[in-house]
Amino acid sequence: MLYVIKAGGNVLDDPQQLEGFLEAFTALPGAKILVHGGGKIASEIGLQMQITPQYVNGRRITDAATLQLVTMVYGGLINKNLVARLQQLGCNALGLTGADGAVMKANKRPVREVDYGYAGDISADGVDGAKLQQLLDAGFVPVLAPLSYDPANGSLLNTNADTIAQEAAKALAKLMPVQLIYCFEKNGVLSDVADDHSVIPLINAANEALLKADGTLQGGMIPKIDNARAAINAGVQKVIIGHAGQLDALVAGKSGTQII
Amino acid sequence: MLYVIKAGGNVLDDPQQLEGFLEAFTALPGAKILVHGGGKIASEIGLQMQITPQYVNGRRITDAATLQLVTMVYGGLINKNLVARLQQLGCNALGLTGADGAVMKANKRPVREVDYGYAGDISADGVDGAKLQQLLDAGFVPVLAPLSYDPANGSLLNTNADTIAQEAAKALAKLMPVQLIYCFEKNGVLSDVADDHSVIPLINAANEALLKADGTLQGGMIPKIDNARAAINAGVQKVIIGHAGQLDALVAGKSGTQII
Repeated sequence: MLYVIKAGGNVLDDPQQLEGFLEAFTALPGAKILVHGGGKIASEIGLQMQITPQYVNGRRITDAATLQLVTMVYGGLINKNLVARLQQLGCNALGLTGADGAVMKANKRPVREVDYGYAGDISADGVDGAKLQQLLDAGFVPVLAPLSYDPANGSLLNTNADTIAQEAAKALAKLMPVQLIYCFEKNGVLSDVADDHSVIPLINAANEALLKADGTLQGGMIPKIDNARAAINAGVQKVIIGHAGQLDALVAGKSGTQII
Repeated sequence: MLYVIKAGGNVLDDPQQLEGFLEAFTALPGAKILVHGGGKIASEIGLQMQITPQYVNGRRITDAATLQLVTMVYGGLINKNLVARLQQLGCNALGLTGADGAVMKANKRPVREVDYGYAGDISADGVDGAKLQQLLDAGFVPVLAPLSYDPANGSLLNTNADTIAQEAAKALAKLMPVQLIYCFEKNGVLSDVADDHSVIPLINAANEALLKADGTLQGGMIPKIDNARAAINAGVQKVIIGHAGQLDALVAGKSGTQII
C-alpha cells in the first residue's frame, strides 16, 4: 500500500502539532509520499519583501513576485526544513517540486474571466508516476511542494497542495494500491460544522447522495468530497479526511472520515 | 565517466551565459551532476528582507536569518529554476540539498576564533555516494544546491559550492571514474592574472611544485589547486578549471587548465 498524505498549512504553522505529525508519518510503515501546503510563513516573508497579496473577485492571484516568493518558501524553506527534520527522525525524505524529474507537469491556467497569473492546472497525464515509483523503489520518501512544472516555459507554477496530492494519488493508483489521506485541523467531515465530534465516519456512493440531498454536506466540503470521489473513480482505494494529530488512527480507520 | 560540474555565482548572474552553459551541460553525454553557487540574487533578496550580511574579521557569517535566506534562495529559487530550465532543455534534472536523501552530511563549524554560525563542514564519509549513484542509475541528473545537512540538529547548513562539488566528486570516485570541472568567469588558471590568455593548460605534480616555487601560482589560486590535488589524491581522475562558456571544450581538453 502507498499512502499519499497531505498536510495543510495549519499543520505546518503549529510546531508542536507538526512534530507529532512528522513522527507519526515516519513511523508509518511502507511506501509513502508527503504533500505539504504553504502556511503562514509565506505571507510573513511576503510582507517582509513587501509583496502584497493580489486578489481579483476574491480569488488569490499568483503574480510574478508571488511566484518567486512561493518558489523560495514552498520549494526551499518549508520543503527543505521538513526533509531535514524527517531525515533526522529516520525517514529517507527527498524533497521535490513538480519540476524535479518533471514529475508534475501543468499548464498555466488560461485567462477567462480572471487571469490567475502563474497558477498551474495539472495536465492530463501530467504526473510521471513511473518516476515517482523509481524513487519509491529506491527507498526514498518523496516530499512534494505545491509547485508544478510548466514545460512550455521551463518554469514553475503555483498549484494547490490538495490538487498535487490528488493527482499524485490518481497517477500512482495505476501502478500500485493507493490510499489518499488529507490531514487538517478538523476531526473529519462533520455533519454539524459547529460540533467537532459530529464526524461522519464513512461516506460511500449511497449515503453521499443522501448527505448532499438533505444538506448535511454543504459549502466548501462539497468540492472536497467531489475531488475524493474523482480520485476513487480513478482507482484510489480510499480517501481519508481527518485530524493531523491522529495520523495512525486515520490509517487504521479508527478516526476521521473514510470515503470509499 | 561521471562529470561533476560546478557553476559559480557569476555564471548564474548572467542570463545569456547561463543559457549557453545549461545547453552545453544538457548536451554533455553520460552521467553528470551540476553543483551551483549562490549569485547576486541572494544578496538582493536579503536586502529586500532587510537581512544585513554579517562579517567577523572579514569573514561572512551565516546567522539564523541568513540561513533562512539561503535555504529559500539556494534551495528554492535558484535550484528549482535551474531544474525547470534543464528539464525544458531535455535534461532529467532533480534538485537536491544535502538534506534530500541525506546525501551530504555536515557538522556545524566549531567555534574557535570566529563563530561562523550555520556554516557546515562536510563530515568524514558525509557524502552518501551510494544514494547519488541510485539517482544517477535511475537516469536523474542531480542538481546540488550549496546547502548541507546537519544530522545532529535535523537542519540545514550553509556550505561553499566548491566544497560540495569536491566532496561529491571524491565520494563518487570510489564508485565510478569521475572528472571534476570548475566553471567560472576566467579561461583557466592564469600564469599572469592580468592576461586572460595566459592559461596554464596542464598542471601535474611535477610542474605544480615549480609553479608554486617561482610564484606563478599565488593568492586565491593556491587553495583551489590544493583542493584539486586533494580530489585527485582521493581518486578523482582529473580536475578541470575553465570558462563557463567553454564547457564542451573543457571536457574535450581543448580549453582551461587540466590538473592531473
